[in-house]
Amino acid sequence: MQQDLLPANAPYDLEEVRRHCMQTTIITSRRLDEDLKTKVVLASETFQHTGSFKFRAAFGAALHSRADHLLAASSGNFGQALACAAAMLGKKCSIVMPEGAAATKKEAVLHYGAQLHLVDTARETRKAAVERLAAQIENVEVLSAYDDERVILGNSTLGEEIARIDNIDCVLVPVGGGGLLSGIIEGLRRQGKDIPVWGAEPKLANDGARSLRAGELLANSNEPATIADGARTISLGVKNFALIKEKAAGILEVEEESIARALVKLFHLANLKVEPTGALALAALLDHKEKLAGKKPLLVLSGGNVDPSNYSRLISG
Amino acid sequence: MQQDLLPANAPYDLEEVRRHCMQTTIITSRRLDEDLKTKVVLASETFQHTGSFKFRAAFGAALHSRADHLLAASSGNFGQALACAAAMLGKKCSIVMPEGAAATKKEAVLHYGAQLHLVDTARETRKAAVERLAAQIENVEVLSAYDDERVILGNSTLGEEIARIDNIDCVLVPVGGGGLLSGIIEGLRRQGKDIPVWGAEPKLANDGARSLRAGELLANSNEPATIADGARTISLGVKNFALIKEKAAGILEVEEESIARALVKLFHLANLKVEPTGALALAALLDHKEKLAGKKPLLVLSGGNVDPSNYSRLISG
Repeated sequence: MQQDLLPANAPYDLEEVRRHCMQTTIITSRRLDEDLKTKVVLASETFQHTGSFKFRAAFGAALHSRADHLLAASSGNFGQALACAAAMLGKKCSIVMPEGAAATKKEAVLHYGAQLHLVDTARETRKAAVERLAAQIENVEVLSAYDDERVILGNSTLGEEIARIDNIDCVLVPVGGGGLLSGIIEGLRRQGKDIPVWGAEPKLANDGARSLRAGELLANSNEPATIADGARTISLGVKNFALIKEKAAGILEVEEESIARALVKLFHLANLKVEPTGALALAALLDHKEKLAGKKPLLVLSGGNVDPSNYSRLISG
Repeated sequence: MQQDLLPANAPYDLEEVRRHCMQTTIITSRRLDEDLKTKVVLASETFQHTGSFKFRAAFGAALHSRADHLLAASSGNFGQALACAAAMLGKKCSIVMPEGAAATKKEAVLHYGAQLHLVDTARETRKAAVERLAAQIENVEVLSAYDDERVILGNSTLGEEIARIDNIDCVLVPVGGGGLLSGIIEGLRRQGKDIPVWGAEPKLANDGARSLRAGELLANSNEPATIADGARTISLGVKNFALIKEKAAGILEVEEESIARALVKLFHLANLKVEPTGALALAALLDHKEKLAGKKPLLVLSGGNVDPSNYSRLISG
């Protein structure tokens, strides 16, 4: 696996990716610690370019693609991140999104000058829509939001940053396709930091946890209806599963209600606006207290892009 | 004025205040810059202890008080900050609040173990309530949220931090009683940084701006009904007015509608949750574009404590 991540023919310019990303924002909150009865460190990617860690992935992939036109399916954050990265690099970009995606994410894709293609996922899968579009565009590359070495390496820059933080003894990371979890493990290990890294996955979308239990890559039968829209993936990526199976501490399954409760705690006790997917790591801490007892975890808050109507509903309980 | 700030008989331990405060969180946002058509730097005190800059003020005052019991009137943020500082220093604390204060602020005061006294401000002024209580408590000191050298010096630690930030050429600061504006000017000047510092005050509560125009300290006839509850002060403090009159670039008056619009922009374009008072500096930038044209301002976001119902209403427009 390790060699795959740095293919000999296509050297990966980690320094250029680092230079274009915002450093993650480290936040601690006395009130939150008192509530949780443990010290936690928050690494908030809500202030990353385009409001989520996905910019690291997208910039890494866009920088190392030889195509002029980048095409991807995305429930939203990878889409706007790729649109932004493409604009920065002078490339064209088309994004396929389900019709029900958050309005704020659709607007952001358009803001960065990309073409937005909405799909009725009941009638056509995102994958089919992407293939249909790809056949119509010249010199195009279809990018995966997670199953791609360039994405994992982009995300590994966050792992490097986490490696420099003292006084933590495990890391909790939201899981959709597994690109962030893989990347953080990769970045931590590159820096020689060998602490447990857990995934946090909605129970409603537990293909990752089920895959680890089965020892083989399993998929959900259709797009899971979790409120964590960034985790509505059908399965982990092939590359991600191989890395996660070997190196992750495990994947913790999380109740929907706990995701909402975690989002509300971040609002009240840390003044942090996160999207539901961004609350997964804290939700895992709430649901798996015994497993993490006595640990000082770092929680990765993966993104903050959420519609005001959805957010209002969640914080009003 | 300068000498008053460091009274000879009561040396002020700035280092101890610095050590107990969180560093301010510096945030920049490409989306926000594009929207505003200028580069802004945000200094967010929403992640300070107790969720606002007031902790700097309160800790400074509590540390340098000889009393065992601290008493203050506060629309909220100074109250919870003082309650927290008192708890850290092993002192007792009583807070007088108007009945209509944000529930989140009342809960926080109680959380830190302070006594909460609610006042019906239509029947008794906060000042009268404080005097009534002070007469009943042993070895008590009544602290002002702004008109106090110890408060100004506590807030000056934020000015010191801002002085270290490159590529800014003015600073915009919310104004209620003027303690933050005074403190930031004091901290910047101590570090030898001589850039213009503007106050941002709701037009509905423009006693500060009117006082500067008149050249004498004027007061509002009663508590102004601005949505920026941290700026519902009757007048600037005497000490603050003297310092602001001499050293501030001016006070910019801000429409209520612009405060709401600024809060929404911070939600959408910077993923930042701020309370209405925390949006005053951005609102001033929106309302005074010509005055600040071509400037790269640093905006101080003073706090983030807002009830979910109020916040939902504001972000839903």
